[in-house]
Amino acid sequence: MVFSSKLIEDAVQEFARLPGIGKKTALRLVLQLLKMDEQDVDAFTSAIGRMRHEVQFCKVCHNVADTEVCMICVNRARNSTQVCVVETIRDVIAIESTQQYNGLYHVLGGILSPLDGIGPGQLYIGTLHDRVKNNGVEELIMALSPTIEGDTTVYYIARQLKDLPVRITTIARGIAFGGELEYADEMTLARSIAKRLPIENYVNSAGS
Amino acid sequence: MVFSSKLIEDAVQEFARLPGIGKKTALRLVLQLLKMDEQDVDAFTSAIGRMRHEVQFCKVCHNVADTEVCMICVNRARNSTQVCVVETIRDVIAIESTQQYNGLYHVLGGILSPLDGIGPGQLYIGTLHDRVKNNGVEELIMALSPTIEGDTTVYYIARQLKDLPVRITTIARGIAFGGELEYADEMTLARSIAKRLPIENYVNSAGS
Repeated sequence: MVFSSKLIEDAVQEFARLPGIGKKTALRLVLQLLKMDEQDVDAFTSAIGRMRHEVQFCKVCHNVADTEVCMICVNRARNSTQVCVVETIRDVIAIESTQQYNGLYHVLGGILSPLDGIGPGQLYIGTLHDRVKNNGVEELIMALSPTIEGDTTVYYIARQLKDLPVRITTIARGIAFGGELEYADEMTLARSIAKRLPIENYVNSAGS
Repeated sequence: MVFSSKLIEDAVQEFARLPGIGKKTALRLVLQLLKMDEQDVDAFTSAIGRMRHEVQFCKVCHNVADTEVCMICVNRARNSTQVCVVETIRDVIAIESTQQYNGLYHVLGGILSPLDGIGPGQLYIGTLHDRVKNNGVEELIMALSPTIEGDTTVYYIARQLKDLPVRITTIARGIAFGGELEYADEMTLARSIAKRLPIENYVNSAGS
């Protein structure tokens, strides 16, 4: 692309550095911003700047936070005996958006993946151990990716915590609502048959 | 989506105001920016801020410019007797990127579209008239949308300039390179047969 304005070119190049944004999309967004009121563009850039400079990571659960401890961890109305272990803050947002979970979280920062060079030292497993030991956590709900790496991480954590009196569970695996049996992979289908539920449980879990 | 950080939520909402960016894409971009170095995010926001506050519109051709007159209009190496008339600055970028055109431009700012309330008064037709009259323009190349509105605009401008000694041409319409005949619409196909070229012209135009 050939630009007749360095200002436009610079803005397009900055946008195109974001993953998933090509040059054409970047140009479209820049021309859109050019059409917007200056104060709206200032609101856009300052929201991003503030986000990057001021966001903190909760020192308890490693979720993003506006303060030293995140608003989930400080919320006394939540059940602090349950901790849901997730890979990223994106998973926290996904689970919070269901509005069905009232416990706390622990963001590992990833899962064990020797091929990517991610070992236990790169994950927040030590702080999870401390929380379970000192904060009266009774149940850890492992909500990690349903992959070999996810399962390995679950087993690794379970072994690290084996001397502590905590119940470790994982989220249910099975056929998704609206999913079609014939398109489910064999592992999932086999597991959902092996872990079948009596009808009353099914009705309860669908309704709650 | 439920966020545990107002800073993240604000940034996601600002991104999601851009057309074509949904909440999920906005969140992905924000989390990507969160991973980037602070100085890279500053470069991103300041490039956008500078673009919006400092970009000007060339007072000759209405293209975007970093100065009062754009770098295409001030370039003495370009052929100032040819002016290519386009709808938007995006068209200027598209034609400049071909690196095959060495004349100047005139950005109309749209095309006549009574349904959208766009009449001649909303377009830069007056300044085009002045340029042709005073600046020695010999040829106007109309590169507008191949639609009824585009054709109407071409005819309107031609009528406005009928007393001036300027040649008005339009870009060639036809089957695109790599296009398949069977998928071409009837209008285009009919026109490309009616305006067929002798083979030597075809070879010349393909090779130049």
